[in-house]
Amino acid sequence: MKNDKITSRDVDFAKWYTDVVFAAHLASYTGVKGCIAIEPNGYAIWERMQEILDKKFKELGHVNCQMPVLIPESLLKKEGELVEGFAPEVAWVTMGGSKELDERLCIRPTSETMFSDYYASHVKSYKDLPMLYNQWCNVLRWEKETRPFLRSREFLWQEGHTIHETSEEAEKETRQMMEVYKWFHHEILAIPSITGLKTEKEKFAGAEYTLTNEALMYNGVSLQCGTSHYFGQKFSKAYDIKFRNRQNELEYVYQTSWGTTTRMIGGLIMVHSDDKGLVLPPRIAPKQVAIIPIFKTEKVLAKCEKIKKELEKNSISCYIDLTDKSAGFKFAEAEVNGIPVRIEVGERDLDNNKITFVRRDTSVKYTEALDIDIPTYVKNLLETIQHDMYERALKRRDELTFTAKNLEDVENIMNKQPGFIKADWCGSLECEMKMKEIKGTKSRCIVENAKPLTGKCVVCGNDAKHLVIWGQQY
Amino acid sequence: MKNDKITSRDVDFAKWYTDVVFAAHLASYTGVKGCIAIEPNGYAIWERMQEILDKKFKELGHVNCQMPVLIPESLLKKEGELVEGFAPEVAWVTMGGSKELDERLCIRPTSETMFSDYYASHVKSYKDLPMLYNQWCNVLRWEKETRPFLRSREFLWQEGHTIHETSEEAEKETRQMMEVYKWFHHEILAIPSITGLKTEKEKFAGAEYTLTNEALMYNGVSLQCGTSHYFGQKFSKAYDIKFRNRQNELEYVYQTSWGTTTRMIGGLIMVHSDDKGLVLPPRIAPKQVAIIPIFKTEKVLAKCEKIKKELEKNSISCYIDLTDKSAGFKFAEAEVNGIPVRIEVGERDLDNNKITFVRRDTSVKYTEALDIDIPTYVKNLLETIQHDMYERALKRRDELTFTAKNLEDVENIMNKQPGFIKADWCGSLECEMKMKEIKGTKSRCIVENAKPLTGKCVVCGNDAKHLVIWGQQY
Repeated sequence: MKNDKITSRDVDFAKWYTDVVFAAHLASYTGVKGCIAIEPNGYAIWERMQEILDKKFKELGHVNCQMPVLIPESLLKKEGELVEGFAPEVAWVTMGGSKELDERLCIRPTSETMFSDYYASHVKSYKDLPMLYNQWCNVLRWEKETRPFLRSREFLWQEGHTIHETSEEAEKETRQMMEVYKWFHHEILAIPSITGLKTEKEKFAGAEYTLTNEALMYNGVSLQCGTSHYFGQKFSKAYDIKFRNRQNELEYVYQTSWGTTTRMIGGLIMVHSDDKGLVLPPRIAPKQVAIIPIFKTEKVLAKCEKIKKELEKNSISCYIDLTDKSAGFKFAEAEVNGIPVRIEVGERDLDNNKITFVRRDTSVKYTEALDIDIPTYVKNLLETIQHDMYERALKRRDELTFTAKNLEDVENIMNKQPGFIKADWCGSLECEMKMKEIKGTKSRCIVENAKPLTGKCVVCGNDAKHLVIWGQQY
Repeated sequence: MKNDKITSRDVDFAKWYTDVVFAAHLASYTGVKGCIAIEPNGYAIWERMQEILDKKFKELGHVNCQMPVLIPESLLKKEGELVEGFAPEVAWVTMGGSKELDERLCIRPTSETMFSDYYASHVKSYKDLPMLYNQWCNVLRWEKETRPFLRSREFLWQEGHTIHETSEEAEKETRQMMEVYKWFHHEILAIPSITGLKTEKEKFAGAEYTLTNEALMYNGVSLQCGTSHYFGQKFSKAYDIKFRNRQNELEYVYQTSWGTTTRMIGGLIMVHSDDKGLVLPPRIAPKQVAIIPIFKTEKVLAKCEKIKKELEKNSISCYIDLTDKSAGFKFAEAEVNGIPVRIEVGERDLDNNKITFVRRDTSVKYTEALDIDIPTYVKNLLETIQHDMYERALKRRDELTFTAKNLEDVENIMNKQPGFIKADWCGSLECEMKMKEIKGTKSRCIVENAKPLTGKCVVCGNDAKHLVIWGQQY
């Protein structure tokens, strides 16, 4: 059933996206330009993301902490590239109470400065290393154009900041955390992302290199979903983070940072959802099952309660819709909110020993005998949905992944249907900029250890250094 | 064993407090005046607080969300009392990127404004009510004098904001949430707080009334640990939050808000800790047991691993200290960090079928036969510690709770040893201000439904209206 409040995805993708955000009550606009209110339905998804990622981070030895939200200008300015990268887009606090401040403070756009300043005064010896810190917090970037979740002035994220004794260890950490993001997208969000290296132009300001996790949305536009940066000693030299090494000499630490944000919620929507609203992969869905009594008779309600208890005992999250709305309305609400499985419990069905299950992703209905093992049945159904959603997203991604040998190929692809474009690249900024002229096609990532397609740069035809994935971006 | 880095509690309480904060690595100062970095040991306590409170909030039907960190000045100004209360202590963002803003934005000191603005556009009918929202976030108040956890410019908290169909329902919510805070302090933090009503002078700016949870620190100074406000229709009228009631008429909603903050970590320290460092009640301790191998022989390590597995299987959190430090150093570290129980595993003890348990709160050592059921033994020990810590805090509180019939009594008490003072009060602001002249003695709360002590105001001697708990405050 098409939702009246939602524009069709194939008619106007951008409008469809915001329609889904609002219809599923994920977020709403506020009186603060460029800042959204994340509503309970949206925040519950973020809580699931936090829960799963945080557990993984901790298993890998990370601990959480919290640095101040304000950064003094002088501290921010210590690392030149970082300032250049972020200064144009920070918000400045210039007054405290009724007094003008001696030094203005910015609201953190990212916290390399604060962590570096902290580490500089807390690390003494190689025995203190590694320090594997992470924080969950809000950050602010003064963006001009904003969209709910994808690009908003304030957003929520986690930022890991680690320091190490050797470059090998720090590089290992950088790669390990990228693997975590990839795992999270593939296994939990059912999003078949690709990972690789950012080009010099696209890397994080101040990083030696940046690894990135890139996902392709339904409309063929790319979304960066998590980056992991290797800083080497750049920040440790700028902020004087030294430790006494095993040779009893003072040495600068090796540093990393890595982050993912609430924009992943935007990615979830744009990869999986449809004209009926949100579609959530079961492993990230805050509620996996909606149990809907067709009429609230005693018998029906008792059965609903029994099912709820059984499901919860098997760690399946669910709710019974006990509101006074019509059954049809309840179905539509479970649909627009993306609940993976709906169970319909009706008096007549019960009399006939029947019960109905409906998949959100395919809308397929299954009417089963009442005496089946419901938790096992639902568990299998949820796993099938998770699997099928990944496969569907993978198929879409592969259909929208093209190869190009020259600029004409790129133009033809981008004029018809944008997607990922695989093409060789010589490594020059000039060629990268020329690609951008074609409908904003930017390098997404350098594929590591890849065989070249032609061996010649897609732009200039000179010898290629890298196979690159290109695409439009959010 | 006295910790060298910690001033004695009875010599200099204020210095002792910050010494414990730093020695236990709970927080450290930063380059941002008045803002602390909450270090992993401190943040882990906050995570436990969040976990337990959040579960309780959700059981009571609340959902989490996230409102913007910035509030436009015009929006803040809509509720007059709130502005007066908070305007002198907010930080103002006046620049975004390189541009001066048309309207300045403050960093939220509390979010009544944002929630009210949200509710105004989202509630339509009594069918939408109640809306029971909460958020975990950072807030900022431009304090002049700051102390780690107790008063810092930025702090972390949860703020619940709910709207209801009737005043009865909203008042019930206000009281229910105060009960949650009381439960949390008594059952989890082992802090025997008292609850009551704030006076007109001390209530939250814009509230009809404020309920408060007040704890007494070891030194006899009070700490406000959680407040719950009933707003009636004050904010709903200022922000135009109307709904269509059951009579199909437009009516203003009834509203509440309630919050607790990272200052509870300060309370934990000041109620329970000692000259050796932090002492944590088992139910809030992120790690309940430290397992310490005396020498890292194969046999000892195998035993440590076995104990760890058994404890974890029984939901007891623990860690093995595998560092290269000396056993004495490890003991001291577990002590300063407040780990409730330490298990010492030594080669010679193992040969003699012995194992040693040490309580952090009393330093008492128990050497037991190796074949006892360790998880059950530890579970009982943890429960005993939790119980004893509460009883000890209760005894201290009762010893430092005094009654006063007149100002001379108050002076005598406050000159000797501050504490809670129970005294009758006529209800006038004048008398409240006179009390304050005696070493800053302020009303902590009005005890509800209490029998008066003398029936006469402790200050003016006129007829008393209330029994009040008075005290100095952080």
